Amino acid sequence: MKLGLIGLGKMGMNLALNMHDNGHTAVGMDLNPDNLQRAAQQGIATATDLADLVAQLPSPRVIWIMVPAGKATDSVISQLADSLSAGDIVLDGGNSHYQDSIRHGEQLGAQHINFLDVGTSGGQAGARHNGNFMIGGDPATFKVVEPLFQAIAAPDGYLYTGPVGSGHYLKMVHNGIEYGMMAAIGEGFDVLQHSQFTYDNAAVAKMWNNGSVIRSWLMELAQDAFSKDGNLDDIKGVMHSSGEGRWTLDTALDQQVATPVIAMALMMRYRSTTDDTFTGKVVAALRNEFGGHAVDHE
Amino acid sequence: MKLGLIGLGKMGMNLALNMHDNGHTAVGMDLNPDNLQRAAQQGIATATDLADLVAQLPSPRVIWIMVPAGKATDSVISQLADSLSAGDIVLDGGNSHYQDSIRHGEQLGAQHINFLDVGTSGGQAGARHNGNFMIGGDPATFKVVEPLFQAIAAPDGYLYTGPVGSGHYLKMVHNGIEYGMMAAIGEGFDVLQHSQFTYDNAAVAKMWNNGSVIRSWLMELAQDAFSKDGNLDDIKGVMHSSGEGRWTLDTALDQQVATPVIAMALMMRYRSTTDDTFTGKVVAALRNEFGGHAVDHE
Amino acid sequence: MKLGLIGLGKMGMNLALNMHDNGHTAVGMDLNPDNLQRAAQQGIATATDLADLVAQLPSPRVIWIMVPAGKATDSVISQLADSLSAGDIVLDGGNSHYQDSIRHGEQLGAQHINFLDVGTSGGQAGARHNGNFMIGGDPATFKVVEPLFQAIAAPDGYLYTGPVGSGHYLKMVHNGIEYGMMAAIGEGFDVLQHSQFTYDNAAVAKMWNNGSVIRSWLMELAQDAFSKDGNLDDIKGVMHSSGEGRWTLDTALDQQVATPVIAMALMMRYRSTTDDTFTGKVVAALRNEFGGHAVDHE
Amino acid sequence: MKLGLIGLGKMGMNLALNMHDNGHTAVGMDLNPDNLQRAAQQGIATATDLADLVAQLPSPRVIWIMVPAGKATDSVISQLADSLSAGDIVLDGGNSHYQDSIRHGEQLGAQHINFLDVGTSGGQAGARHNGNFMIGGDPATFKVVEPLFQAIAAPDGYLYTGPVGSGHYLKMVHNGIEYGMMAAIGEGFDVLQHSQFTYDNAAVAKMWNNGSVIRSWLMELAQDAFSKDGNLDDIKGVMHSSGEGRWTLDTALDQQVATPVIAMALMMRYRSTTDDTFTGKVVAALRNEFGGHAVDHE
Repeated sequence: MKLGLIGLGKMGMNLALNMHDNGHTAVGMDLNPDNLQRAAQQGIATATDLADLVAQLPSPRVIWIMVPAGKATDSVISQLADSLSAGDIVLDGGNSHYQDSIRHGEQLGAQHINFLDVGTSGGQAGARHNGNFMIGGDPATFKVVEPLFQAIAAPDGYLYTGPVGSGHYLKMVHNGIEYGMMAAIGEGFDVLQHSQFTYDNAAVAKMWNNGSVIRSWLMELAQDAFSKDGNLDDIKGVMHSSGEGRWTLDTALDQQVATPVIAMALMMRYRSTTDDTFTGKVVAALRNEFGGHAVDHE
Repeated sequence: MKLGLIGLGKMGMNLALNMHDNGHTAVGMDLNPDNLQRAAQQGIATATDLADLVAQLPSPRVIWIMVPAGKATDSVISQLADSLSAGDIVLDGGNSHYQDSIRHGEQLGAQHINFLDVGTSGGQAGARHNGNFMIGGDPATFKVVEPLFQAIAAPDGYLYTGPVGSGHYLKMVHNGIEYGMMAAIGEGFDVLQHSQFTYDNAAVAKMWNNGSVIRSWLMELAQDAFSKDGNLDDIKGVMHSSGEGRWTLDTALDQQVATPVIAMALMMRYRSTTDDTFTGKVVAALRNEFGGHAVDHE
Repeated sequence: MKLGLIGLGKMGMNLALNMHDNGHTAVGMDLNPDNLQRAAQQGIATATDLADLVAQLPSPRVIWIMVPAGKATDSVISQLADSLSAGDIVLDGGNSHYQDSIRHGEQLGAQHINFLDVGTSGGQAGARHNGNFMIGGDPATFKVVEPLFQAIAAPDGYLYTGPVGSGHYLKMVHNGIEYGMMAAIGEGFDVLQHSQFTYDNAAVAKMWNNGSVIRSWLMELAQDAFSKDGNLDDIKGVMHSSGEGRWTLDTALDQQVATPVIAMALMMRYRSTTDDTFTGKVVAALRNEFGGHAVDHE
Repeated sequence: MKLGLIGLGKMGMNLALNMHDNGHTAVGMDLNPDNLQRAAQQGIATATDLADLVAQLPSPRVIWIMVPAGKATDSVISQLADSLSAGDIVLDGGNSHYQDSIRHGEQLGAQHINFLDVGTSGGQAGARHNGNFMIGGDPATFKVVEPLFQAIAAPDGYLYTGPVGSGHYLKMVHNGIEYGMMAAIGEGFDVLQHSQFTYDNAAVAKMWNNGSVIRSWLMELAQDAFSKDGNLDDIKGVMHSSGEGRWTLDTALDQQVATPVIAMALMMRYRSTTDDTFTGKVVAALRNEFGGHAVDHE
């Protein structure tokens, strides 16, 4: 299959190479000329702009979007709605909010362009080899592009999940679980780090990855990280977030479903981005007021 | 009533003055000569050591302990077990763990000395005027000293709570509630502080204290604190803790009762005492491993 | 001052009587004829519909809205935008989301109608006597109606808070604090209820309300509730919620401010509305899978 | 190696068979004659009592304990302290608290008996094949029995962790992480279950196990569980617990380390074991008191 791939960042580039290795040809496009050049150097066909990309593709055209969620994806979808033809197929492999994907599906559908929302997991390594994909949309459209997923996904590593939106919804929840798992692993190593014993974190993670109940890819990544820097001395514990944990929590709140683990994993990320809190100031001030307890000063 | 008062720190001194104002005579004792001297300057009778104190008191002797919980209280109890006589009465007004109080009751009971465990609330201001007391022990012993509580407590501000231990258990739970309330107030002002509006925190607290659902003594203390330093610029948000929140949580866990609010209030105190966390380092490292997300460096 | 009052439910009726007692005349209107009749029986002037209400009021007209937040308030605002004249004043004393209030302010402002958003606290008792009000909007408009607040609020129980939206934002945060405080109190009594001692909950709450650090109106309400039903045997522990705790949490998440106490207070409310959880089913199933631990069956 | 194995329950029996398959001979002992008989039927050598067991083993004797933590393990340790000789080796493969293991090590050490505390993970399947072991104690003693671990563990699936206690400490933390991971997975599927889409949980888990970031053995177990009962209709969401999550939390609290995810995972287990809460009753009663909000009745 020859398809367009818009967005040649870390994820997009790896996907293009993955497709290339597995018998599919991605024609890449990116607003950043450096990304385009790097792709060309690695043997990826490229297009100079959207018109060029559309012109290079056989009909019905298949275009995979791999750009940041939100405004960037909105913009690409709008341009594709103007540029493509009835019967063409658009896949959004980024981390769009599922409600945005439903809207994108309607926007493209008004032009009779087919849309699949594709949750992509596996990180950069998975984009490059044996990826993981959750695909929502029209089932007949899915059938057309299924060979592509067979080629780039891990065996059994893709799933058709239902109507448009269901792919990104599932990816959102996947990331919520990921937040909780990562926090659980982090907290466990924190309790190890403060123990009376001295553990070799990399050796612990390696042992746990071989037969324990908590063996997991995240624990393998922990093993890799500890192998490089056994006590992570070089890393500050600031946990940034890119939105999907928040979306999962919002969705749980909309459903009135209690998800305290995901909520706390998210909140501790926020807490980690600040050195001090106003909550703390108030509590310290109150303790001082009633009990004369000393406060720390700025 | 003439009674002994061991411990003339912030709480003990205020209690001695409260008793004095209300027709009872406390003979104070403290290992710290500065405290003894300060008490004498304020008209509090003092004793030079335990033997002196015991000698000054009429029989049956009544001795109120107001020293730090744990080893200090244990030590005083042991000395009193050796120094007092059958029928004497010991009250522990400190923040002892209720299980320690049960043990203290047995230890003194073996010498036929009566013991009451007294949870004391109201802060320093309450020790001085209109205190709040939760009293466990033998009901007949309580009756003997009830006039003292009538004198120093706020109207309706003392309660006989049942057998030895029940006073300090109730005080422990009181502090657990206090942790949760303080955190709730702190978090609320944190959300105010980050709003698009500009609030006068002292004015807000004052208004809330006059008619709102959340009017409370803690909100009055917040009003006082904000009156001095409207945005608490001078205070660092480090929330120290002295143990009773932890005990409440331990007790809840023993009961398999879910107390997430008290638990989180306590954990955020711990979190506030450290600039960085190993949990955070691990999560940041994992995000870097799978997604190439940048980490902050130390 | 003679003003209109739209909405004669529990809160609105009490406010009308409060105004009446304190020298102001509310002309009430309500879509429910039963409410209208009940108001008339209590000496409240009434209007049959909005046109009638507008006709009865002197210019500039002042109208206080006290209807459920969301669609009902939206609808009343739209009707008032059509019915009122430039220079008239609308107050929304309900629990509207502050962003809705900003929108309402713009909608009415386009007709040169002045708008104040009024957060109302104190419950039904406060609506009736000594209420608590947080008022956002144009300061000159506030000055016009300030005598009304002086009459119906507790002394020092109202505050001008800044631009439109700031009143309801503050009320939202107030309710977030309320969620946390209530949960803290509930958890504390839960740990009492499971203790080895037997406490008289009403007596405990009464004693705490007289001198303790946690004395508060909510604890007084607890005292009242326990006085009627000492162990709340007749009440099921289902904690419904009407939205403002959720809004506070949403706002905190938007600000990336950690509010774990408010979050957990809210989540435990959701948890209480269901007998079983899918989370629980999954965890029970996993324990069975790896350890052969028995599961409970439906 | 010929060794004794005390405790032929689910875990012990599987370990005996694992040892047998891999060239080691376990002589089994169990107070329950049914277990003994079942072991014999599967070709496991057995002993009728401790004296018989001791008599059957070559010197230095090696005895692996696999009985419930707490009193049962305490009792076996005491009997072994009396029955074994200097230079013999005892391994505790159960889930003992690490502080108990330190005590056991001292108790046996006083008789010059060597002790290793062995955290065992991998569930019943791991006990049978490719187990996972964390081993604390004297390094020379570990060297003597290392061939046994090489035989029964997964490749790289055992680790010498340091002094006595370090093995069970690490297992405790492992279980804390497990609590958090399981709750994260459960919460995620809860948010799926309440979505507007209809997911095939088994297919989702299978797909996630092939290439996603959250692939893990626990997700494989979820896949297995969903394969049998796609919506777990037959399972009640009661999450029992056997203590190690609690120990991890206790340890974190001792360290003043914030572990909110592990704490909430544990608390929601407790919450799941009760139909109603007193916290909920109190909050419902308070809402009724101030706002007249209806309560649900028992």
